[in-house]
Amino acid sequence: MSSRRCVRILGTGKYLPSKKVLPDHLDLLLDRPKGWTRKKSLIDERSHVTTETSSEMGAYALQSALKNSGLSPSDLDLIVAASSVPEQLIPSTSVLIQKKLGLENSGIPCFDVNSTCLSFITAFDLASHLLSSGQYRNIAIVSSEIASRGLSPKDFKSFSLFGDGAAAVVLQSTTDPQTGVLGSHMETYSSASDLCRILAGGNRFNPMNPPQSYDDYLFQMDGLNLYRFAFEKISPFFSTLLKKAGVTLSEVDLVIPHQASPLALEHMRKHLEVPKTKWVEIIRSHGNQVAASLPTALHESITHERLKPGMTALLFGTAAGVTFSGLVLRY
Amino acid sequence: MSSRRCVRILGTGKYLPSKKVLPDHLDLLLDRPKGWTRKKSLIDERSHVTTETSSEMGAYALQSALKNSGLSPSDLDLIVAASSVPEQLIPSTSVLIQKKLGLENSGIPCFDVNSTCLSFITAFDLASHLLSSGQYRNIAIVSSEIASRGLSPKDFKSFSLFGDGAAAVVLQSTTDPQTGVLGSHMETYSSASDLCRILAGGNRFNPMNPPQSYDDYLFQMDGLNLYRFAFEKISPFFSTLLKKAGVTLSEVDLVIPHQASPLALEHMRKHLEVPKTKWVEIIRSHGNQVAASLPTALHESITHERLKPGMTALLFGTAAGVTFSGLVLRY
Repeated sequence: MSSRRCVRILGTGKYLPSKKVLPDHLDLLLDRPKGWTRKKSLIDERSHVTTETSSEMGAYALQSALKNSGLSPSDLDLIVAASSVPEQLIPSTSVLIQKKLGLENSGIPCFDVNSTCLSFITAFDLASHLLSSGQYRNIAIVSSEIASRGLSPKDFKSFSLFGDGAAAVVLQSTTDPQTGVLGSHMETYSSASDLCRILAGGNRFNPMNPPQSYDDYLFQMDGLNLYRFAFEKISPFFSTLLKKAGVTLSEVDLVIPHQASPLALEHMRKHLEVPKTKWVEIIRSHGNQVAASLPTALHESITHERLKPGMTALLFGTAAGVTFSGLVLRY
Repeated sequence: MSSRRCVRILGTGKYLPSKKVLPDHLDLLLDRPKGWTRKKSLIDERSHVTTETSSEMGAYALQSALKNSGLSPSDLDLIVAASSVPEQLIPSTSVLIQKKLGLENSGIPCFDVNSTCLSFITAFDLASHLLSSGQYRNIAIVSSEIASRGLSPKDFKSFSLFGDGAAAVVLQSTTDPQTGVLGSHMETYSSASDLCRILAGGNRFNPMNPPQSYDDYLFQMDGLNLYRFAFEKISPFFSTLLKKAGVTLSEVDLVIPHQASPLALEHMRKHLEVPKTKWVEIIRSHGNQVAASLPTALHESITHERLKPGMTALLFGTAAGVTFSGLVLRY
């Protein structure tokens, strides 16, 4: 079991693009009868970017988190971007966020961490080590996603499921032994790596060696088999996470899952026997925002006072990989 | 100053594609007189992929590092990919490496870390925390790059400078207080983020919103201004790194720089007053291998017994961002 890492969440923030995409809009766009999209997707609203870039959304979310933290941007001593897809291949998205914040001459170190939808948990886990060891004092983690740019309207399921947006947290080192990460756990099974993918974008292809089909630039998901795979592994994963954190489910006050899909979330909750009162669900109002879902759900939990000082929260989820990852923290 | 993190390098490995690209080949390809490429690039040899993928090269390098470590693949409890460009956008390259190693049902956690050319230093720094805290016991870091796929033969300078390849290290936690990371330091200045970039590949563009020019898919570098920027900042950065590690340059046995370019490397060495006997240079035989340069140079240093147990090594460099990063370790 890893030792407790004393960190505190100083502030959180989120950014949603102003273009709201409602079920009625999708019924029209996708040429379906009125009411069809809401019934099939179970999602009331998601937002899509118009002109916003990933780093702009990330910077807006971080500005909001800094304001809630009572810190100024220059108080940061590390910026970690934790998204599934970068804005461009070089340099890292964290660098572009630093620039958008007006910190271009600050020297504040920047790097990106990527475990697809669970990048935020990975970054939080890493940051807790960097803070508790004293290497850094104030770390920003920013997740920003433009899911809509990887989707084809022809793929109704994904097109109606995903939303764009960003969220950020500012973490600070603390000597308070009551606050911080109690434990974390991660498992990756690449046997299921083809179930959720975007084949192009990286060094597999280039303009001289283009993909056979434009679809290779787009998100491809075998939702049914992904769901089956996740349910096969989730119970033992969840038990190990609780064990590593040294807590029982009854000692956890709030469970914040990755917002995969409305149906999968509800099945997962029942399967893991988490009471509704402890479960955070924002997918109906935000869509699946890929890596931005978890920090957005954390932000909403704090803003709506579902997560209050002294409480124990469990963040977890499944991601392309397939990866299972979770973290238990005392807020 | 951050506390010392006790870790040891159990083994290293590298992989070079079998297609050697010699100066004579480039003279022909680029329609230049014989001898021109060697004279201009100062590079004797670099390798380019034919059919290899990034994850395949990474898996070969890691297999070699595991062999040198005396470990089997299943002894790993974390795989970190540390490259500038992923193989595909989703899932992470570390997941694809896990699969190529035949570990697809192992559950070994996988994530990617990205600070462009210095991703290996960032991953090593993070891994040292994860090991010294006891969260993991054996961590693999793999850097694999297909630089040739981001280059246009029309851009002679870059085309003749870069090479493909991969390298890996296996790190293990240890209780030996004499072995490990003495200190690390990182600075990022996004004011210079446009000097070295690949604009496409991420969520800035997609097939419905394509780049104006194919050049946006390719690597673009303003070498002269990058060099000027680096030289303006490198001395104070280097001093801070030494100070954080609690050593003087005379106490460092070996300096392993990122292999940026032959001329820049030699100027950097003189500027920082590092004696030739302490300086590792592999660029003439490998080219600039982006993030794979540093672990390849570390591997060569160990293989050729320039780095021996008890010695102190300093790894550092500059990367797109612009980022400066370094780490001092006792081997």
